[in-house]
Amino acid sequence: TVGRDLNESLLQSFMDQVESGKIRENLKTLASQPHMATTKGDEELVKLLLSRWQDPQIGLDSTSEDVYGAFLSFPDPQRPNSVAVGVCGQNSNQIFSTRHSEKEVTADQAHADVVQPYAAYAPPGNPRGRLVYANQGKRSDYQELVNMGINLNGTIAITRYGGADRAAKAVNGAEFGVAGVVVYTDPADINDGRASEEETYPNSWYLPPSGVERGSYNGYFGDLLTPYYPAKEFTYRIKESEIQGIPPIPTQPIGFEDAQTLICNLSGPVAPASWQGSLGCSYPVGPGFRTGGLFPNTSDVQVNVYNQRVIKNSSNVMGFIRGSEEPDRYVLYGNHRDSWVHGAIDPSSGTAVMLEITRVLGKMLKEGKWRPRRSIIFGSWGAEEFGLIGSTEYTEEFYSKLRDRSVAYINVDISVFANATLRAQGTPPAQSVIFAAAKQVQTPASSSMSVYDNWRNHFNRISPSYGVIPNLGSLGAGSDYASFIHYLGITSMDIAYTYDRNKTSARIYPAYHTAFDTFDYADRFIDPGFTSHQAVARTVGNVLLRLADSLVLPLNVSDYGEKLDELYSAAAQGDFLANLTANNLSLDPLKAAIGQFKSVAADFNQRITKLKEEESPSPLQIRMVNDQIMLLERAFLNPQAFPNKYYYSHVIWASKSSDQATFPGLADAYTSALETGDWDQVQKHLTIVVQAVESAASTLEAMA
Amino acid sequence: TVGRDLNESLLQSFMDQVESGKIRENLKTLASQPHMATTKGDEELVKLLLSRWQDPQIGLDSTSEDVYGAFLSFPDPQRPNSVAVGVCGQNSNQIFSTRHSEKEVTADQAHADVVQPYAAYAPPGNPRGRLVYANQGKRSDYQELVNMGINLNGTIAITRYGGADRAAKAVNGAEFGVAGVVVYTDPADINDGRASEEETYPNSWYLPPSGVERGSYNGYFGDLLTPYYPAKEFTYRIKESEIQGIPPIPTQPIGFEDAQTLICNLSGPVAPASWQGSLGCSYPVGPGFRTGGLFPNTSDVQVNVYNQRVIKNSSNVMGFIRGSEEPDRYVLYGNHRDSWVHGAIDPSSGTAVMLEITRVLGKMLKEGKWRPRRSIIFGSWGAEEFGLIGSTEYTEEFYSKLRDRSVAYINVDISVFANATLRAQGTPPAQSVIFAAAKQVQTPASSSMSVYDNWRNHFNRISPSYGVIPNLGSLGAGSDYASFIHYLGITSMDIAYTYDRNKTSARIYPAYHTAFDTFDYADRFIDPGFTSHQAVARTVGNVLLRLADSLVLPLNVSDYGEKLDELYSAAAQGDFLANLTANNLSLDPLKAAIGQFKSVAADFNQRITKLKEEESPSPLQIRMVNDQIMLLERAFLNPQAFPNKYYYSHVIWASKSSDQATFPGLADAYTSALETGDWDQVQKHLTIVVQAVESAASTLEAMA
Ligand SMILES: [Ca+2]
Ligand SMILES: [Ca+2]
Ligand SMILES: [Zn+2]
Ligand SMILES: [Zn+2]
Ligand SMILES: [Zn+2]
Ligand SMILES: [Zn+2]
Repeated sequence: TVGRDLNESLLQSFMDQVESGKIRENLKTLASQPHMATTKGDEELVKLLLSRWQDPQIGLDSTSEDVYGAFLSFPDPQRPNSVAVGVCGQNSNQIFSTRHSEKEVTADQAHADVVQPYAAYAPPGNPRGRLVYANQGKRSDYQELVNMGINLNGTIAITRYGGADRAAKAVNGAEFGVAGVVVYTDPADINDGRASEEETYPNSWYLPPSGVERGSYNGYFGDLLTPYYPAKEFTYRIKESEIQGIPPIPTQPIGFEDAQTLICNLSGPVAPASWQGSLGCSYPVGPGFRTGGLFPNTSDVQVNVYNQRVIKNSSNVMGFIRGSEEPDRYVLYGNHRDSWVHGAIDPSSGTAVMLEITRVLGKMLKEGKWRPRRSIIFGSWGAEEFGLIGSTEYTEEFYSKLRDRSVAYINVDISVFANATLRAQGTPPAQSVIFAAAKQVQTPASSSMSVYDNWRNHFNRISPSYGVIPNLGSLGAGSDYASFIHYLGITSMDIAYTYDRNKTSARIYPAYHTAFDTFDYADRFIDPGFTSHQAVARTVGNVLLRLADSLVLPLNVSDYGEKLDELYSAAAQGDFLANLTANNLSLDPLKAAIGQFKSVAADFNQRITKLKEEESPSPLQIRMVNDQIMLLERAFLNPQAFPNKYYYSHVIWASKSSDQATFPGLADAYTSALETGDWDQVQKHLTIVVQAVESAASTLEAMA
Repeated sequence: TVGRDLNESLLQSFMDQVESGKIRENLKTLASQPHMATTKGDEELVKLLLSRWQDPQIGLDSTSEDVYGAFLSFPDPQRPNSVAVGVCGQNSNQIFSTRHSEKEVTADQAHADVVQPYAAYAPPGNPRGRLVYANQGKRSDYQELVNMGINLNGTIAITRYGGADRAAKAVNGAEFGVAGVVVYTDPADINDGRASEEETYPNSWYLPPSGVERGSYNGYFGDLLTPYYPAKEFTYRIKESEIQGIPPIPTQPIGFEDAQTLICNLSGPVAPASWQGSLGCSYPVGPGFRTGGLFPNTSDVQVNVYNQRVIKNSSNVMGFIRGSEEPDRYVLYGNHRDSWVHGAIDPSSGTAVMLEITRVLGKMLKEGKWRPRRSIIFGSWGAEEFGLIGSTEYTEEFYSKLRDRSVAYINVDISVFANATLRAQGTPPAQSVIFAAAKQVQTPASSSMSVYDNWRNHFNRISPSYGVIPNLGSLGAGSDYASFIHYLGITSMDIAYTYDRNKTSARIYPAYHTAFDTFDYADRFIDPGFTSHQAVARTVGNVLLRLADSLVLPLNVSDYGEKLDELYSAAAQGDFLANLTANNLSLDPLKAAIGQFKSVAADFNQRITKLKEEESPSPLQIRMVNDQIMLLERAFLNPQAFPNKYYYSHVIWASKSSDQATFPGLADAYTSALETGDWDQVQKHLTIVVQAVESAASTLEAMA
């Protein structure tokens, strides 16, 4: 026989068996103690995952533990980092120093393994200088201070999270002569302006004044010493000095209580309105402190950083279910296991959901009720917080096998940011299967409304082909899907529950990467009753089963047509078009290639519809169509397209610095051509896109 | 049903239907007039191929003509290139000039479209200087002249073909200050020393004294202006000045009669013994002419080159047979169509064989007697003589589809160099299918001896697994397989009949790339009766049918084990090993990876044997095993391994300049480390090889 299609009743039974209470138990266990990468807590969770997935009743077919020597960065337990104020010359005694750790508002924060706040990969050092406020540390922010007549040489810049990557705040600062950078989280960005202890955790979900956002300050993902090769013992490692994108100057994050003390006592002109947050003062930009403030105007700021870098073994825990019909086709589902502190929301809310999914699937498997058509691979990645290291090393080690056999990668890092609505990011082929699943799950709030309808109410767009539909966001490099989509070219998606944007403008859930991201925080403020966790588990498990069991892969490749049109029209208008034409560059070949893709994809969909109507289509017919669907995403890969970016080979989704909304390579080449006049690079990237689109179209043609 | 396996009787019937007379007729037609790329002759052959493959009785399913704008180089018909001797100052009248064209020994050479001899891509110019003899134009040759106290600045260097790539002779010379290069074919290298008119064509297969070897002088293959992108109208083209690897100084090939006049009248010390050929003199090295010779010792040599570069449309003619069971799996068979002059042997002897194969297969197809399990794609490539342009642009345009669906590429350029024995180059997986075919074909000489046995008598090696077997040579970049193996990672092979090395030391068949490569030459001297052409057609057609029809692909991936061992042991001995150890670099991870590959491959072969014994194995079981076999070669691809080489991504077969016999990247890194002391690069390339071998092994593992 050809092998059965998706079993709808089994799908329903799976969703019914997903229990919010079990997810809550999972989270309680997972977040019981801090589990930063390669620490005792992390190793204990490795054992926990192995035991769950080797369980005779609810386990999987097999497991493995893949170990990599990851290049990490830790603070020095004996010498806490700090930002101090002192009068230079006066035997430099400190007048003020930032907190060495967050306030213990609940017992959790007192745990011995709570790592002190620090900026991973920032170099050690004790730079000292006059303080300036540099907004978000964007290049334009530093330039603005220079335009205001401030000499940044040797200064210490305090910046707020957001607006630029973490590392960029220090990299940009160093280019302007800044000697050290301090980063804080402004209450305006994270707390909807609330800054008092009463209005923040443990009394609400908002970040307490002493809360500090830890983070990894690197420009690239993957192990920094072994780009493109799995970080094994024998693997060639570049010199530390060759690492690109990490801060060249000492950098340290602090809380907004301490930031207020520093910023609100600065002298100098008031910052532009767009730079001002909710510290309750006018944000003077410095340099140095004003007379009559808390500090003598001769005092300056010293950033004390004692971080050390070391290679430590980090594990990926893998779990496998062998496919009954096509064991050489993989549906991958992953989340990282390591956290900064207790990591209740980030990442354990995701692992709690994954363990509930594997429990229900494992039970059906062990009871002989089900085995998927295709193989399913579960990954618990290590060292994600240090730059997606575990997942990236995995894609480097098994590059060939994964590139040739992976149907899709599902990422569920933070499963519930807040309990208002579903939000999903992914490449166009994933849209249809996510929608199909979301339509079969009820929202926690009311069983009469589907997760899909609620989602569409919160985030929607008008699609030329489908009308008003939920808006599937684009994948950046924020979590472990990065190397799957950018390096391997595998159709990927990231699914979670999130905020009602009418109720909060918080950049991210306020306890993110702080010691307050605890089980209590999640249980009382993020998802009381864990019904949103349950909705995510049902939706994601539904997507997983559709991908693993449907006879024909439920990935609608023709949905790339709308995205190509969107990116095309961003170039085919206004100045962009005028400048192209002025430099005799035509968009016609691109227009033709996209038209060709859309018509070939439409014919392809018709052939699929006919195939599905056939009584008993041959297994090879099905396999051939599925191969075309699986490999369509790969056709957009071009390892030569972005020579100075690690891992970014996907022509549609590569990172870009330009804010032109067209294809990334074309956007960056255009923006730099406006300055340099080098329109050759613009034509080169036009060629790259046209060739990729034509290549993708040709893979969908009928077998001549 | 699973679909039938290879039909042995059909295979035999195919071979019986291959007629030497028909091949002879094909060659007569194909070589009737010169058909250099993009000339009238070439366009007429495009029509011929289309008509053969669209023929209702003996044609294929469908055809296509793919056109590319190739960047070519031609001499100026109005101003013939030449190498002249004159006395500087004396109104520079010429005392001597080399021939503008080859002697008309038969009517063929008189054809209007015979292109004059030239070095394609050599820049125009008229450099003048004292003549030196620089052997093969290797760097070591020029260095030797410097060591002999000769100042090469501003000189003209005459060199002989062989020992270094064509372009390298001029590139190296320019680095030593040489102003122009002349290249000739020495009778010792091409004619077993024979130099008289009586002993050469039309009286024998040897090159007449006026014969000149044309050729393309470029360092890279593919269209020089569009690396990695198909040369379409809109395609971004690099500036001519950015082209790497072409001669920076005017360069012109001449015949050995003219070379004798120049070299044998030189002054200066006698060349080392190894530099001397059969010109019948002592090969003085110059500089300048001796007193008492043919020329005044004050005279010098002027190289007159008027080549022009231009973009012209070149076509690939494609023919398709749709597979009945797996139309999305391609067996590719190609040869180039363009020649330098009549191109009887190069390339028409290959096209004559291809057209006989397509005639017999087309007939069986049209009569409904046969349709292959997998699709077969025939390619007649354009502009190969200008650097494999047609085939490379094809692999760029259809990169994704070809990478994901191609089972193997068979190249038959020159099908018969001479009629003594089969010779084949290929990657290890191709060994088994070539051997199987060769065992079923009788040698032209005696029907009691198979082509295989005869081959093994001429070229053999001792295989640890198989004992004495024919030696399958390695693929370089000498013909159109280059982009299939190096860029796409497709298992490739090149099959031909060739010399008895006891009878001739000719570098290649003497009329190669000259106006004497005519039908008469082929008919009377290379393969009278065309029985070797027939043997090649039967062998290659047999390989093609086995690849297209066998249920399980007849490519034995485990044969890579011996090649990996061979390359490993070249590093694990002598100074190489000592130097590695001295720089604490270990070969153990590589040894382990190869051991792992060999054991996994052995298990894989056992699973295949069991699968073949099954009554009715499921189509998907067969497909999965075939995918593992097809994609094994891809696992050795690494686009980051050789950043400064175009197209070379295959870790085992990339080009190398070092003469260390180990893995190419490792060999070059080792050789340069001996000078620079940079052992990091050696470790990097060790990592690259280990990762590739481990990755290849993991693709052959059983489906966990
Ligand atoms: Ca790595
Ligand atoms: Ca090209
Ligand atoms: Zn996370
Ligand atoms: Zn995180
Ligand atoms: Zn050829
Ligand atoms: Zn040739």
